[in-house]
Amino acid sequence: MATMKDVAKKAGVAVGTVSRFVNNKGGIKESTRKKVEKAIAELNFQPNEAARNFKTQQSKTIALIIPTIWHPFYSEFAYHVEREFSQKGYKTLLCNSQNDAEREINYITMLEKNKIDGIVAITYSKVIDQYISSTLPLVSIDRHFTEDVVTISSDNYAGGQLAAQVLVDRGCQHCAYMGSVSEIENESMLRSKGFQEYLEKQRTKTTFLILNEPVEDLEREIRQFLDVHPYIDGVFAMNDKWAAIVMNVLKEMGRQVPEDVQVIGYDGARMSKDALLTHSTIRQPIEEMAKRSVTELLNIIAGSKVNSKVVLPVNYFEGNSTKKP
Amino acid sequence: MATMKDVAKKAGVAVGTVSRFVNNKGGIKESTRKKVEKAIAELNFQPNEAARNFKTQQSKTIALIIPTIWHPFYSEFAYHVEREFSQKGYKTLLCNSQNDAEREINYITMLEKNKIDGIVAITYSKVIDQYISSTLPLVSIDRHFTEDVVTISSDNYAGGQLAAQVLVDRGCQHCAYMGSVSEIENESMLRSKGFQEYLEKQRTKTTFLILNEPVEDLEREIRQFLDVHPYIDGVFAMNDKWAAIVMNVLKEMGRQVPEDVQVIGYDGARMSKDALLTHSTIRQPIEEMAKRSVTELLNIIAGSKVNSKVVLPVNYFEGNSTKKP
Repeated sequence: MATMKDVAKKAGVAVGTVSRFVNNKGGIKESTRKKVEKAIAELNFQPNEAARNFKTQQSKTIALIIPTIWHPFYSEFAYHVEREFSQKGYKTLLCNSQNDAEREINYITMLEKNKIDGIVAITYSKVIDQYISSTLPLVSIDRHFTEDVVTISSDNYAGGQLAAQVLVDRGCQHCAYMGSVSEIENESMLRSKGFQEYLEKQRTKTTFLILNEPVEDLEREIRQFLDVHPYIDGVFAMNDKWAAIVMNVLKEMGRQVPEDVQVIGYDGARMSKDALLTHSTIRQPIEEMAKRSVTELLNIIAGSKVNSKVVLPVNYFEGNSTKKP
Repeated sequence: MATMKDVAKKAGVAVGTVSRFVNNKGGIKESTRKKVEKAIAELNFQPNEAARNFKTQQSKTIALIIPTIWHPFYSEFAYHVEREFSQKGYKTLLCNSQNDAEREINYITMLEKNKIDGIVAITYSKVIDQYISSTLPLVSIDRHFTEDVVTISSDNYAGGQLAAQVLVDRGCQHCAYMGSVSEIENESMLRSKGFQEYLEKQRTKTTFLILNEPVEDLEREIRQFLDVHPYIDGVFAMNDKWAAIVMNVLKEMGRQVPEDVQVIGYDGARMSKDALLTHSTIRQPIEEMAKRSVTELLNIIAGSKVNSKVVLPVNYFEGNSTKKP
């Protein structure tokens, strides 16, 4: 028996558009309407009245897939996503995938079966690519998939440039970038690119510590790197977790932050709404990214026009790990 | 038209029991089976075949109601709850209630309509009492409702005693408890009770700072209290957030932790799986509480025997805010 998904595929439209057609929601272009009607006739699609009603009552649910909710960035992001969906009348299913592709595919299957209406995903697992397509109502954070999948990220390149600019302005003579890379390409790799290109233009010396995921003993790697390059007086860490570890290692080595070495992180997530950031960092607009994810996903579901790539501006937070200007 | 809920009410059994009966799942006592059969006959209950099948596919969903996911305790708890439900084949709906009773009631209504199978709730809102009953598959954390509602908490009383014992053992002569109270009674109030009773037995001097929620300017209140009682050399704070604020105020006052004042918090939640605790605290068994919530809720849904009150043991974490023994 043909499903709405089959009709959508045959008509070359989003599932949401077929749903709007079937439920007489309007707002569909005449040319689109004809395509859907044709596909319905050809497939002999019969919207099951009972199931449809049941669905109309039951749906309005989206899934939020994140590696783990037990992490400040993801919990802050999830907080805003759930609040925003709730205001739009949607319930949010939580999935701590821990990058387990099987769990992620499980939710994509639910989506294909119309058990949920859409997915907001932060995923770094490998095999997921083949399951993602632009016909699915899915918004991806940071990771750009092939095809026309909607991706939302902060301006990682500008963030890297901003970190470099601050370190140079505050007197650093020899900067370092510290971060890891995995097989899965994602937007966050632009952080080191922006950092490097800014410093090249400034002719400021830069050294890189790039480790492959998974990293075995990060503290030891950082300590060795700082031992070999004792002249480093400014560090841009790939995220705040790395920044915290760098500051710990420096403390153990008897080097003062920010007097001897200035450190800037990335993310700016706080562990709770009333917590304060202490160290200097490039802040991602987490609330804005969450709200935009919701807007874009609801646009896909409604069959409206969407932006396939949304890049949101970052800003610098002045903490206690850089010298005052 | 009669629903499973109506049948459950009439038969005086859990909705889960009626569901098991209708779906021929077995495991129902003969006497219970008779009650259900009688109620079905009297109400002329007709399980809708289509809806039932749909439900069988669609359900297996529970709701997790917490004040906010953007907080280490709740995100650690939610992480384990979702992981555990997932392993049992259940999906988890996330609700950041922010103590908005309307949102909480919304989920209770979903439960009554069988759109979800159960609720795990951490709630401090006022009007919720009248909506909660022991016939609903609901597990409450920390807050004890009237009737026979399942409550899970850490051993707050023993935690208070343990904090007092550590402070006395480490040489404190004059201890203080600092915390707030709200109109909603919950198990966490036993922390101060355990603390007080231990110190009374030891004839150790104790002073209390108890503020009414909502607290306007906590820093100022704590500073005033410490100004008025300069001899205090040990503080037990109601939770880790308070402990952090107490330590900040002490630092601003030029008093050393733990040399001048020792501080112990409560909770022991970490902001992520690989984060470390730094200060001394009474650790709630968060993973165990989450897993037990899942077990007890699934028992209610299955119509099995449940414990109406589960109290799990706490332990002391030796951090840098107390003197070494």
